[in-house]
Amino acid sequence: MSVITIPVNTGKPYEIKLGRGLIAHAGELIREVHKGARALVVSDSNVSKLYAKTVSDSLVKAGYRVVSVLTFPAGEKHKTLVTINHIYSALARGQFDRSDVIVALGGGVTGDMAGYAAATWMRGIDFVQIPTSLLAQVDSSIGGKTGVDIPEGKNLVGAFHQPIRVIADIDTLSTLPQEYVTDGMGEVVKSACIRDRELFELLEKDQPFSPALLCEVVRRCMLIKCRVVENDEHEHGERKLLNFGHTLGHALEKHLKYTGISHGCAVAVGMAAITAASERAGLTESGTTKRLCALLRKFGLPTKGPAAVSEYLDAVKLDKKCIGGNVDLVLLSAIGDAFCHRVAVRELEGFVL
Amino acid sequence: MSVITIPVNTGKPYEIKLGRGLIAHAGELIREVHKGARALVVSDSNVSKLYAKTVSDSLVKAGYRVVSVLTFPAGEKHKTLVTINHIYSALARGQFDRSDVIVALGGGVTGDMAGYAAATWMRGIDFVQIPTSLLAQVDSSIGGKTGVDIPEGKNLVGAFHQPIRVIADIDTLSTLPQEYVTDGMGEVVKSACIRDRELFELLEKDQPFSPALLCEVVRRCMLIKCRVVENDEHEHGERKLLNFGHTLGHALEKHLKYTGISHGCAVAVGMAAITAASERAGLTESGTTKRLCALLRKFGLPTKGPAAVSEYLDAVKLDKKCIGGNVDLVLLSAIGDAFCHRVAVRELEGFVL
Repeated sequence: MSVITIPVNTGKPYEIKLGRGLIAHAGELIREVHKGARALVVSDSNVSKLYAKTVSDSLVKAGYRVVSVLTFPAGEKHKTLVTINHIYSALARGQFDRSDVIVALGGGVTGDMAGYAAATWMRGIDFVQIPTSLLAQVDSSIGGKTGVDIPEGKNLVGAFHQPIRVIADIDTLSTLPQEYVTDGMGEVVKSACIRDRELFELLEKDQPFSPALLCEVVRRCMLIKCRVVENDEHEHGERKLLNFGHTLGHALEKHLKYTGISHGCAVAVGMAAITAASERAGLTESGTTKRLCALLRKFGLPTKGPAAVSEYLDAVKLDKKCIGGNVDLVLLSAIGDAFCHRVAVRELEGFVL
Repeated sequence: MSVITIPVNTGKPYEIKLGRGLIAHAGELIREVHKGARALVVSDSNVSKLYAKTVSDSLVKAGYRVVSVLTFPAGEKHKTLVTINHIYSALARGQFDRSDVIVALGGGVTGDMAGYAAATWMRGIDFVQIPTSLLAQVDSSIGGKTGVDIPEGKNLVGAFHQPIRVIADIDTLSTLPQEYVTDGMGEVVKSACIRDRELFELLEKDQPFSPALLCEVVRRCMLIKCRVVENDEHEHGERKLLNFGHTLGHALEKHLKYTGISHGCAVAVGMAAITAASERAGLTESGTTKRLCALLRKFGLPTKGPAAVSEYLDAVKLDKKCIGGNVDLVLLSAIGDAFCHRVAVRELEGFVL
């Protein structure tokens, strides 16, 4: 097992372990940073079938005495407080206390919910992220954002809670259905756009996605995310740059009731739309939209949504990024260089449409 | 309006404002530390009738544009995730964002829930504590512990989230039914026991409880709580001392399904029982139990519960203070001086009974 270690220097520092074949060693990798006796593995019905046994066996091997697996039905529509209550019940049944650990095994939905349960059980217990989707590996497993959807909006309930370790096994990406890889590429392109022109150029090259290349792409995205989160753990400033494409993307997802489009695809549409608008306004280097859209299409990502922007612009107003009547839009000055641009909500229409 | 200011130097520092007649000035006292436009007042059906209008009028006067009041039925049995969901809905309806504020107006139950909602709405928004009960003023409004009961246990779900200000109006205590004053005296006696022998002696004196004396008692308790919380915000060490009487007290409350005994009375029973045990074990100055029980009786607090300790000792095992098979009991070496004493859960019976 060859492992790349990426330190994350947040308030409570931790490490990301990245490599191939790490799932089978999850127990020992967790044991290095955790001393307790009980572990609850939270996973969805798809991922659980593939990896839950491997992970729980390795936890037992690493000396965990009580290892339970809580499986919930796969899909964003189960990212609810009802599922959180099931996790709480499992924790209570297992008599989990502050010395124990929750292991999030799966994609972004699993990590967000298991992390939120860990943030709120007994006012905070340890948790580990084992992201198995590309989107979770490059983005959602890092940075300590946890959250749950409620009928009124996505991630309106949540907490900042850093994991004690992230274990990203590149091999899990090979079992992903193509649509999930595509979905994750949305965030990969976003990372390149805001901070890494070289990565953008690497992605533009015509070459097969070997495990080594995939590992390098994931590593670069992780580094971007880590550096931004370290500078701004609680999203007061720089961290907002990670929301490039997300303000419109979230609104589109909401408009389609979280069933019509995947997160990565919605972000792709959001990036294309906001970059077109800012290029029109003269805030973005000319030709950027064209280049961005070409790269999105290369990875099978959409550049236009199933609904027009005018139809879902109202949903922006309940977004967390909409503060005190203003919204901070993230724009590109050029590929690899993002900045924040504050717009009054009432002027949003004029800017975007 | 004469105001005593007590600074609380937690990670995010804030101030307590203590005095008479502060409720009518709540708006301006909040405005000093908060710039947003929306305020949600959370209160229970008893307190809402008395003070919600005064507080919301003062918020409007201080320039808040949207002021809503969410009232839930009074009583610990409503300290549930169902009530939290009602608060979330009110926040969504009012389009509350991270620039807005929640105002907790009431006793410990209100503060715990409004604080928890603030901790988890959009990953954390500002909140203000306006404690109107003695227990909330001397204890629960300070220190950032928020929590909700679930069927499996008290405060099993929660978060650490500091308020941006605490506004304690002594005059609200005069409208409290006697049983609530008695309840609060449980925590007052606890504070004296763990850190303030002078306060204990002041309480032993035969004198009427004038507003000035009450203010002095509340102030001393606040100082004790602040100093302990400042040294140990997330309860890894010293803060545990505040749990004197609470391990058995919580277990008794749980055993009686949170309806048979008030929190302060349960803590009184817990303090008496654990001190008797530690005096027997030679860990506490001889005569302490007798003096403690005399003071508890003076304030109408019980020294024995409606159930024997042996009946509810099992409930200790799911307590947050029970970590990795051990429980940290808080004992007194003498009045005014507490210490932590670790006991294996399997030896608990031998120690306590």
